Amino acid sequence: MQINIHQTHHTISDFEAIYSYLEEVLSNKLNCDTLHIFPELFLTGYPLQDLCLQRSFIQKYCDLLDRIVTLSQKTKNNMTLLVGGLQYEFDEENLPITIKNVIYEITPKSGLRVLYTKKLLPNYDIFDEEKYFTAGQENCIYEYQGKSLGLLVCEDMWISSMHHTDPVRELFLECEQQKVELDAIINLSASPFYLGKDNTRLIRASEISKLFGCPFLYVNRVGGEDEILFDGSSFCINGSNVTFRGKLYEKDIIKYKLEQFSGDRDLIKAFEDKLNSWESLFKCDLIKNSENNLRLPELSDEHCEHILQSLRFGIQEYAKKSGFKNFDVALSGGIDSALVLAIMKLSLLPGQNLEAIYMPGFYSASKSYDLSFEMCQIIDIKMYTLPIKFIHSSIRNQYNDVFHSPMEGLCDENIQSRLRGALLYARSNQRNSMVLNTSNKSELAVGYSTLYGDSVGAISILGDLYKTEVFALAKYINKNYSNIIPAGIIDRPPTAELREDQEDSHSLPSYDRLDAILEGLLSYQLSEKDLIEKGFDAEEVSKVYRLYTRSEYKRRQFCPIIKIKAKSFGTGYRVPICKSV
Amino acid sequence: MQINIHQTHHTISDFEAIYSYLEEVLSNKLNCDTLHIFPELFLTGYPLQDLCLQRSFIQKYCDLLDRIVTLSQKTKNNMTLLVGGLQYEFDEENLPITIKNVIYEITPKSGLRVLYTKKLLPNYDIFDEEKYFTAGQENCIYEYQGKSLGLLVCEDMWISSMHHTDPVRELFLECEQQKVELDAIINLSASPFYLGKDNTRLIRASEISKLFGCPFLYVNRVGGEDEILFDGSSFCINGSNVTFRGKLYEKDIIKYKLEQFSGDRDLIKAFEDKLNSWESLFKCDLIKNSENNLRLPELSDEHCEHILQSLRFGIQEYAKKSGFKNFDVALSGGIDSALVLAIMKLSLLPGQNLEAIYMPGFYSASKSYDLSFEMCQIIDIKMYTLPIKFIHSSIRNQYNDVFHSPMEGLCDENIQSRLRGALLYARSNQRNSMVLNTSNKSELAVGYSTLYGDSVGAISILGDLYKTEVFALAKYINKNYSNIIPAGIIDRPPTAELREDQEDSHSLPSYDRLDAILEGLLSYQLSEKDLIEKGFDAEEVSKVYRLYTRSEYKRRQFCPIIKIKAKSFGTGYRVPICKSV
Repeated sequence: MQINIHQTHHTISDFEAIYSYLEEVLSNKLNCDTLHIFPELFLTGYPLQDLCLQRSFIQKYCDLLDRIVTLSQKTKNNMTLLVGGLQYEFDEENLPITIKNVIYEITPKSGLRVLYTKKLLPNYDIFDEEKYFTAGQENCIYEYQGKSLGLLVCEDMWISSMHHTDPVRELFLECEQQKVELDAIINLSASPFYLGKDNTRLIRASEISKLFGCPFLYVNRVGGEDEILFDGSSFCINGSNVTFRGKLYEKDIIKYKLEQFSGDRDLIKAFEDKLNSWESLFKCDLIKNSENNLRLPELSDEHCEHILQSLRFGIQEYAKKSGFKNFDVALSGGIDSALVLAIMKLSLLPGQNLEAIYMPGFYSASKSYDLSFEMCQIIDIKMYTLPIKFIHSSIRNQYNDVFHSPMEGLCDENIQSRLRGALLYARSNQRNSMVLNTSNKSELAVGYSTLYGDSVGAISILGDLYKTEVFALAKYINKNYSNIIPAGIIDRPPTAELREDQEDSHSLPSYDRLDAILEGLLSYQLSEKDLIEKGFDAEEVSKVYRLYTRSEYKRRQFCPIIKIKAKSFGTGYRVPICKSV
Repeated sequence: MQINIHQTHHTISDFEAIYSYLEEVLSNKLNCDTLHIFPELFLTGYPLQDLCLQRSFIQKYCDLLDRIVTLSQKTKNNMTLLVGGLQYEFDEENLPITIKNVIYEITPKSGLRVLYTKKLLPNYDIFDEEKYFTAGQENCIYEYQGKSLGLLVCEDMWISSMHHTDPVRELFLECEQQKVELDAIINLSASPFYLGKDNTRLIRASEISKLFGCPFLYVNRVGGEDEILFDGSSFCINGSNVTFRGKLYEKDIIKYKLEQFSGDRDLIKAFEDKLNSWESLFKCDLIKNSENNLRLPELSDEHCEHILQSLRFGIQEYAKKSGFKNFDVALSGGIDSALVLAIMKLSLLPGQNLEAIYMPGFYSASKSYDLSFEMCQIIDIKMYTLPIKFIHSSIRNQYNDVFHSPMEGLCDENIQSRLRGALLYARSNQRNSMVLNTSNKSELAVGYSTLYGDSVGAISILGDLYKTEVFALAKYINKNYSNIIPAGIIDRPPTAELREDQEDSHSLPSYDRLDAILEGLLSYQLSEKDLIEKGFDAEEVSKVYRLYTRSEYKRRQFCPIIKIKAKSFGTGYRVPICKSV
């Protein structure tokens, strides 16, 4: 039995492109006698949020469904498609009463038919599916060419004590009751990427394969949706063996011949593991370093390469969907902006243009210019030097004239950062370029940036990487991509250069300690007390906690961050600005 | 039977203040032989979002519960408290497995006892309760001093076809089955304010009162939580009569003697109405004006006063919780900034300081200065005039020197707006003041503002009012608060003054048409097609729709907006930036 796995890549609600894709599949005679499987919500894209409530979206989507029915009825080729889509039920006033996340069967004769409704609607972290969708109640054992296929949609494969239902168990019990031996499990997914997720998926899929004694097919979409990436990486796992892989971050069609199960059955493990669950969100994986202190786990080369590919994809997706071909990065001579520039350089496609702007002020070291210039020379990127000293002076004078109070301290520091932000955006307006934000996760967590200043940008590249990880990624890039970041940039102590002799280390704990504390607070929900019990310095913890909780207002106005980790700032992180804790 | 209704006002997670309040109630002998009722989640505050998952919060909350038990055991006074709080269940690793939104009974003998768990968890618009909480299954008929009291928590009182459960019906059936006649319904609420909500609450409460044949007591919290306001306004309704009202936006204690039911029973209406429901979110209330065109309903004087009080409260709550006593508003000579200044002036408390900054550029009319100055004279607010011409020139020159390309068009327009934003924040940094944003809802909806420019601010005052409503509110204030906004500001055509002879009407449809189209798109989810069918001009609709969907990226980086309407930008509005629709 032949199964074609369509790892697709479309913009959300791009119904024309989605229709054309189906038209091509249905009209191709080579596709006959084949089962074609598509990702979850292939017909709409994902995540939709409120879009699925808007009548513009609903009307165009319903038109698409009608056109698909007509198309399938005209088709003479004998094939079957299983596609993810939405099923709406409307009331007498045409308002959506229920919306279901379903698997449609498309066949030449029957048009569209709902086979299965997603049972387990993820509703934690970035997920809001219970806000919009109604869960299914029924299992589906789908018969095709004499084979029995168990159907699941994405989250259905996972278990957690938070979930009120366990679709894998329910499917298993149904198979036992009906005395059916499945020939394959097929999971239609739209599964957001984070580092390590792919491995977790494989482990879980293998458990399910061994439970049912059949191959587990996983088809995932490709796409960058604002902050969230879908990595594709579809697969089949048969017992313990991965028998195919889809491409990473690229559309793909995998032609797969259904295999016999190989390996040992295991009727227990699949019911016990709680991977990728509510509980896993709290599981602290800080590790002890050689001095026996808790630190972030180090990024391996493999991790770094995966991150790099993810960031490149995320940038290009956002640029394409927003219509940008030009890019601007403000260089400071520091590691963050240098790394963003390096990543963007490595991401550039033909016809795209990248430029760097260096904006020295009174407190910029000449070394900052030298290093920025050196880097741009190495990677052959035009660097503009736009000094802000004179403008800064002219602002100081004008300000003092009016307020009779000189710009000093924070006021004088931030004006430089905001002036740079404004100038960067002037250039962006002039040449219609996308501004790449250069903040990192450590900065964001403690509010060590200037709102409307160095925090500006269309999208944040490093906002899900702590400062120590920024260093690791820079070193990896240098090692594997011809030393494009000057060593001097990596070696110098981090500074914002907004006053004399400013260094990050004067205001913050050392980054390895800071990052570990932040990871504890953010990813594992640890309290100050927990962190102190784990051996962190009480005073440092208390300082970091205060900075962290009091900088919520800055994060609220931050741009989308390309999501790399299981826990990130952005959609999946929602905390009141004003509170007492 | 004596019931004291505690309409409380505490910052989220301010456990010390919450404990002290309880201590005071329990130690007061005058409170004996009385039932004391408190709002939903009195013990924590609301909304909590991810805070209720963070161990810092959880540990401090659990400490509070322990302290309350000890306190209640020490208390000699005979009284009973019904307070809203969270009930956590933890697993063996101390992770929260379920979190319930409950009513605790506090008595001198028994300490804390859970009486009831909220059944209906709102999960639409701004609400995410299913993300965090587990719903209750059981009704509660609470016996106190020989009386039978039906307990509900907030959303439990509403019905909708989206909801899988109807707590009012379930309670009613239980009463029938047990042959109990209730003496009162008590609803503990934390119900966000929007215009018209109070009336909807009264109508629904009256229906329930008539269904059960007993008074309906409604206790609501007071507070401004970032964008969301809780208005208090607790009440008792007996049949059709309101027998007490709590204060608006102020803490209050109402001493209430339980009444006999008066009026006619109605066993049908309460099961039919769908107020404040999923469906009501779509119910279009655009009205026809004298030319038979659909327009926004006009704001009555009563609406305007309610809005004004809400905005004053919202500003002061945000200021107090963020620790600000100084305020800055950038005046432009236009209506939005003038209205913000007027509202802030009317909100000022002793010890607070408000100043205005007028920043004229090359395209600012002298009239803009005159009107701004006149207004500040009238309301006795210090106005600083900080010209940006020279700085703008110096930026133009520097920019041209570097890029060999003069600042023109959008680039030259936006730099002025961003320069003003930077200067305003310089002043804010210098005197530790809170910057009040001056954008309105129409601007926000079509992206007619400069990101990091005129869109800056800590909190948005007018972001939930369309431009036509801004005019209405300004006129109302002039009529009722001694003409503090010069007529010239209200009468002149809106302009951003960023280029020669710029007027909003050159780029946008007239505001009465624009606002009606926007309300259709935003509040009623209407499509372009729907709007055209309702009689709007096809070209205008299509232009507005394009501006609306393409400005999502600006809204993503906008500050919190004080929520005034049923449908607002902010937490309750979630749409992907990149999409095709």
